[in-house]
Amino acid sequence: MVEKNIKIFKGDIVFTPTKDKFQTYKNAYIIIQDGKVKAIEKELKEEYGHLTIEDFTDKLIIPGFVDLHFHAPQFPNRGLGLDKELIPWLETYTFPEEGKYADIEYAKKVYSKVLHEVWKVGTTRIALFSSIHKDSTKILFDLFIKSGLGAYIGKVNMDRNSPEYILEDTENSIKDTIEIIDEYKNKSNLVKPIITPRFVPTCTPKLLEELGKIAEKYDLPVQSHLCENLGEVKWVGELHPNFKNYASIYEHYGLLRNGKSLMAHCIYNNEDEIALMAKNNVYAVHCPHSNYNLSSGIMPVRTFLQSGVPVGLGTDVSGGHALGIPSVIVSCIQASKIKWLENKTLPPITTPEAFYLGTKGGGSFFGKVGSFEEGYDFDALIIDDSTLCEIHKLTLEERIQKFIYIGDDRNIVRRYVQGEFVKELDF
Amino acid sequence: MVEKNIKIFKGDIVFTPTKDKFQTYKNAYIIIQDGKVKAIEKELKEEYGHLTIEDFTDKLIIPGFVDLHFHAPQFPNRGLGLDKELIPWLETYTFPEEGKYADIEYAKKVYSKVLHEVWKVGTTRIALFSSIHKDSTKILFDLFIKSGLGAYIGKVNMDRNSPEYILEDTENSIKDTIEIIDEYKNKSNLVKPIITPRFVPTCTPKLLEELGKIAEKYDLPVQSHLCENLGEVKWVGELHPNFKNYASIYEHYGLLRNGKSLMAHCIYNNEDEIALMAKNNVYAVHCPHSNYNLSSGIMPVRTFLQSGVPVGLGTDVSGGHALGIPSVIVSCIQASKIKWLENKTLPPITTPEAFYLGTKGGGSFFGKVGSFEEGYDFDALIIDDSTLCEIHKLTLEERIQKFIYIGDDRNIVRRYVQGEFVKELDF
Repeated sequence: MVEKNIKIFKGDIVFTPTKDKFQTYKNAYIIIQDGKVKAIEKELKEEYGHLTIEDFTDKLIIPGFVDLHFHAPQFPNRGLGLDKELIPWLETYTFPEEGKYADIEYAKKVYSKVLHEVWKVGTTRIALFSSIHKDSTKILFDLFIKSGLGAYIGKVNMDRNSPEYILEDTENSIKDTIEIIDEYKNKSNLVKPIITPRFVPTCTPKLLEELGKIAEKYDLPVQSHLCENLGEVKWVGELHPNFKNYASIYEHYGLLRNGKSLMAHCIYNNEDEIALMAKNNVYAVHCPHSNYNLSSGIMPVRTFLQSGVPVGLGTDVSGGHALGIPSVIVSCIQASKIKWLENKTLPPITTPEAFYLGTKGGGSFFGKVGSFEEGYDFDALIIDDSTLCEIHKLTLEERIQKFIYIGDDRNIVRRYVQGEFVKELDF
Repeated sequence: MVEKNIKIFKGDIVFTPTKDKFQTYKNAYIIIQDGKVKAIEKELKEEYGHLTIEDFTDKLIIPGFVDLHFHAPQFPNRGLGLDKELIPWLETYTFPEEGKYADIEYAKKVYSKVLHEVWKVGTTRIALFSSIHKDSTKILFDLFIKSGLGAYIGKVNMDRNSPEYILEDTENSIKDTIEIIDEYKNKSNLVKPIITPRFVPTCTPKLLEELGKIAEKYDLPVQSHLCENLGEVKWVGELHPNFKNYASIYEHYGLLRNGKSLMAHCIYNNEDEIALMAKNNVYAVHCPHSNYNLSSGIMPVRTFLQSGVPVGLGTDVSGGHALGIPSVIVSCIQASKIKWLENKTLPPITTPEAFYLGTKGGGSFFGKVGSFEEGYDFDALIIDDSTLCEIHKLTLEERIQKFIYIGDDRNIVRRYVQGEFVKELDF
């Protein structure tokens, strides 16, 4: 019976089908069939009358948050070592930490904690870098599969300009990558592999070429870093003087896959690189906390939006210290205001726009995710914001703003992915 | 007996006697006499052997946070209406909210909530703007006196360029100000009045002149706003073409009192204004969240520090959405990094520097406050950071960083002001 696959939730529904404004339904019903949104109704149709309703009256029902950039092994460094720029930060703090994941017991300990914390802050889909280590990466896969959350997980590839303890042999890097793909490509509907060259400076042309081939052969998505820091951009130019820019190196090796590549940061892209990303529907992943913390700069988000480049948000743990996307949404809006002061042709990002980036914008990388339009996966959070609106009677638009700006994980009372309740982890 | 006035706390002690680094004592004893720090000792002297020790082994003991700029009546607007710049923001969101405090029942409701939240986030001293309303301001005084926290509270004065419902008659503005001063100047050791002209555009020269006289007569501190927004600075220039700059208007009317004036924001001060502030030891209060949210700009904190101007931090609720000083410390560091990218002669603010600004820097406005040097008031927080450092063994410097960047009020287990335990409010 079809009805067996129907769930009905009642509450105050808020989402952003388009960037320009919140769509809101006060005291409405959202009908879920086979984990997907079927309809939103103000009055419940008779045909559903006999079904049980999950009643969240007066609570917000919003899409789960989507984090497009997170380094799982850097989790223990959160909030530490933010006194350097990108390259010395990698060398001083980040690479030594990533080296520890040769120890799978250490990986189990940290990655369990990562899962708990990601769950807690209401992230329902996430794109993760692990480390170079095959076995630790598999642990991360297994934990995410157990959790019920959605993830792309990439074993990091790096075979040059890296300290010896995390420097891969090119052949082994490829071999381990393929082993993980073979093992996990069909193991879960929600947790999938993603090709993950760390960034151009740490990957030989041979490695990039092979990774591009693998991505094509298995039709896999790709994630990496692009134009985060001026020193990095200069270095890439010195390493590859024959390429016209940084982004074109990824393109040359087949790593800017149409609608299937994530490029974190994108602060210093030139016009050609932005046009290239637009042409290939490459996602620019905005990680404002990280960009502040590592003195990288401010990504011109408005420029990317105006150019038709898909944009999502990332925490970039541990360049970013904040685990939750709401804090990144606030930081994104704040950063865009400073950008606007420099360049008045780039209007600040509005609250619904930034919310869109943190839900449907990033969610589109995972399919029909991040919205409550018909046919979208029901990835959702139930928000009890009663502690945030004790004084005034607020509109739904105001309530979602309050939650984003001043709420926290204590306001999130339930999480759902593809219509399934995701309970607190018991591992 | 002297011993009756002695309290001993044991724990991991962290503070910043100077800006350049954290001073730390692992597993040490801090001896408090009559509410003031007498000594910090690694081994407890025999003379104290018979006294009870408040044992917070493995917990951090740090100075309470000092918030130098907070608009109490704007509390209900926190997280709302951040899509405009200063002047339209005041007119659209802020003035209408402040108008409501003609109703003292409304004031009671909001100000009780303010107290709870300020307590919760670990602020132990605060400089507050109320509204123009005398009776509501008295409620704010009474609640703070009851709370055990320290505060300067100012009835706002504004007699021009304001909507009618919060426009004061000059004489009444003065009369109400004096009534409050007379009633509260000696009522509490911890909660005191402060002269509070809103800012130049809303105060007639007559009002500024009278407020300057009152400040001198009663020897009171002063708080106001300075150079927050370019439109505001331009407007002040048009209103007062005979003054050479914005700051000199306050000076002319006796409102830049030596070591006793707070000026919030200070983003667009010119060199003369900075020199004037240095000469008069006027505090520049940095409110980075607000400055981002209202698209105001970034205060060049380093310039002020280099010029010898005292600097503290402010949340600026509700231009700022965040209630806690740790979030302001992070935002201060982040903002300084963006400033540095623009101007490499202004090195970013380091974590101990920003911590200093949020404790001893701002605390100095209240006396010997914000440090644990001998003779300082024991204003302190006990921090249980065990949830933040589950993976690595961390140094005290790393632990305080983690708490600032990723902790929250759940980590604060106790608060003290002048040696007294400040319990959760029961009103």
